[in-house]
Amino acid sequence: MEALTDGIFAIAMTLMVLELKVPDLPKTVSSHELLRRLGEEGPVFVSFFFSFTYCGLLWFFHHLAMHFFRHLQVALVWLNLLFLMAISVLPFSCALLGHLMRNSAALEIYFGNLFLAALLLLLQWVFARKRRLINEDDPQAVRAMGLRLTAFPVALAAGMLAAFYQPATGFYAMVLVLLAFRMWHKIETRKAASEASPSQTAS
Amino acid sequence: MEALTDGIFAIAMTLMVLELKVPDLPKTVSSHELLRRLGEEGPVFVSFFFSFTYCGLLWFFHHLAMHFFRHLQVALVWLNLLFLMAISVLPFSCALLGHLMRNSAALEIYFGNLFLAALLLLLQWVFARKRRLINEDDPQAVRAMGLRLTAFPVALAAGMLAAFYQPATGFYAMVLVLLAFRMWHKIETRKAASEASPSQTAS
Amino acid sequence: MEALTDGIFAIAMTLMVLELKVPDLPKTVSSHELLRRLGEEGPVFVSFFFSFTYCGLLWFFHHLAMHFFRHLQVALVWLNLLFLMAISVLPFSCALLGHLMRNSAALEIYFGNLFLAALLLLLQWVFARKRRLINEDDPQAVRAMGLRLTAFPVALAAGMLAAFYQPATGFYAMVLVLLAFRMWHKIETRKAASEASPSQTAS
Amino acid sequence: MEALTDGIFAIAMTLMVLELKVPDLPKTVSSHELLRRLGEEGPVFVSFFFSFTYCGLLWFFHHLAMHFFRHLQVALVWLNLLFLMAISVLPFSCALLGHLMRNSAALEIYFGNLFLAALLLLLQWVFARKRRLINEDDPQAVRAMGLRLTAFPVALAAGMLAAFYQPATGFYAMVLVLLAFRMWHKIETRKAASEASPSQTAS
Repeated sequence: MEALTDGIFAIAMTLMVLELKVPDLPKTVSSHELLRRLGEEGPVFVSFFFSFTYCGLLWFFHHLAMHFFRHLQVALVWLNLLFLMAISVLPFSCALLGHLMRNSAALEIYFGNLFLAALLLLLQWVFARKRRLINEDDPQAVRAMGLRLTAFPVALAAGMLAAFYQPATGFYAMVLVLLAFRMWHKIETRKAASEASPSQTAS
Repeated sequence: MEALTDGIFAIAMTLMVLELKVPDLPKTVSSHELLRRLGEEGPVFVSFFFSFTYCGLLWFFHHLAMHFFRHLQVALVWLNLLFLMAISVLPFSCALLGHLMRNSAALEIYFGNLFLAALLLLLQWVFARKRRLINEDDPQAVRAMGLRLTAFPVALAAGMLAAFYQPATGFYAMVLVLLAFRMWHKIETRKAASEASPSQTAS
Repeated sequence: MEALTDGIFAIAMTLMVLELKVPDLPKTVSSHELLRRLGEEGPVFVSFFFSFTYCGLLWFFHHLAMHFFRHLQVALVWLNLLFLMAISVLPFSCALLGHLMRNSAALEIYFGNLFLAALLLLLQWVFARKRRLINEDDPQAVRAMGLRLTAFPVALAAGMLAAFYQPATGFYAMVLVLLAFRMWHKIETRKAASEASPSQTAS
Repeated sequence: MEALTDGIFAIAMTLMVLELKVPDLPKTVSSHELLRRLGEEGPVFVSFFFSFTYCGLLWFFHHLAMHFFRHLQVALVWLNLLFLMAISVLPFSCALLGHLMRNSAALEIYFGNLFLAALLLLLQWVFARKRRLINEDDPQAVRAMGLRLTAFPVALAAGMLAAFYQPATGFYAMVLVLLAFRMWHKIETRKAASEASPSQTAS
């Protein structure tokens, strides 16, 4: 499973670059003209950079989550295949957004794809917890992992909703929700630490 | 062998997405127009979704079957390479079907490709059983695995035959045969369980 | 090293399929017309089939050869990278041959590419033997492996030479040399067996 | 991490070949004409050859560096993802240079991309040394590794600078700096050996 997952991530992340197309210019083009043409392709580069980073993040979280799994079940393999399908469609959504950055339908499809991938990763986690497939030796770490995996679908749902009313706000709404989750996580960690420290001094 | 197999599956499953092409529209296109154009590409999406799922299934079954193998032989490596060739041609058949969904030749080629892949997987299993390369400690599990691997080529042959007379029925014929195999498998499992239980109560 | 090698083989073998392009036909095309158009693309399919098989063979031999290696050296890593470069160029040569099957330059480039890949694999083996990096516990097996790795560059050199005079004969010259090597290998194996058997009966 | 890294390297190295396009010629083209047309594509082949070799080098150094790592940290995973992003953009820069070999902007973008990749690999090393994540049992080897990883970004920065004044000199400036580093490395190794030998004779 891990090999297929890593393979599909590696390919999806590299295929996105196929959207960065060499502009069709004569061999005698000036440097200035080349840079101007590449500058016009700016949205494609931004879309590539953002999507690659997001993919890397999901890959990392998938990897972290897998460490908690004691064993797999057929249903989990299927959830993971759906998750990988969402990942492998990403180069398409990324290309769509790169070409039509200001189009709200393209933006919603892109956010929708990111949302679906994040949701399917969360579903794997929720399912595995229900079926008791997860090593819960360190409940603190399990809680933190669950919080991280929840943050993404919620943030992207917020982004989709905001983009529905005003396309430009989608990205900011997403970042805001992620920051809120990060603060919540920090507060929780501190509280847990302060609860844990008295017992440590007692022992 | 496992690394090459996983790699080819990962690439074939991701290359299918290259058929989902960003429609060539001006940057000022309306969201409505974009969705209409993507809607026209519906068959390509359906073909991608179905083929990805089928590939995932074959990959999973290949993986399950490999668990039974005690060791490999040169002939098995060759059968597996032919199997991988059928898998790596799938993005082509999938693209063909996506573009010409209503064309019966495209449908037969697509079903034929799926059939070939499933058949080559079954052949590996049959060959390995004949040469006694399979761990038969649990004859029940070996039987179930063989039944699963047989279901696919039979279902696809039925689909091809039905599609030959009436294209639209091919898919339903395939699903019907798969459901029949599933029921047979369940009945067998229950019978085996009821045969096993008296001895369990006796012991 | 093994992971990169398997990855590049998997990708090169799958990229070849990108040359199998869906013909640009209207959605209402008849089955007959579609098959006729695909039939015209026959050489592309033949080229794909042959190249995939050859790649699979080289991958298998590379794998077998690696089993004899006790450890690697920097120079071997470089030879392997050159070998992988020859492999990763194969989809290009394969596409060239598929489009211009009757062009002798295309044929020579294709054979030249196959020859280069086979030669670089042989060089790895020769280099490793010289530096004593190979496990020679079973001298019989080491000899057989060396013979196998030698057969390919020799057969392809013969193919290139024959194709230089008469394009159509290239393929047959190659197959002839391979069969000659196979016979040599069989004779050697038998001779070794008959030499070994008296001592076995003596003991 | 290693699997994703190897996967992305394998794909980036193989995608570069997609720039080697089969020239669009009629099936009856003469061998002479085909070779002339392929000859015109010379810069694309040079760019592919150089980029593939450079990628192989970076992959090899990444691999060597990883052997020193005792464990990873989240920040290192992120640095590695940025490094992989630079690698996955390489097929684009390589294609750009192949098409516009004499354009100084294309050259700077290409050198900039190689520089960025080499710099991000060095940063991983520097970061890991600061956080004491590296096994320093053999300080000699750690020093040599650091020197190697430093050589590339410095050489590429020199190449970029030289190419800024005179495009054709960029490549030579880069090679010169690499040779200088190699000599420095050799002198250091000899000095270390002569320092080590007295103590060895003493013991």
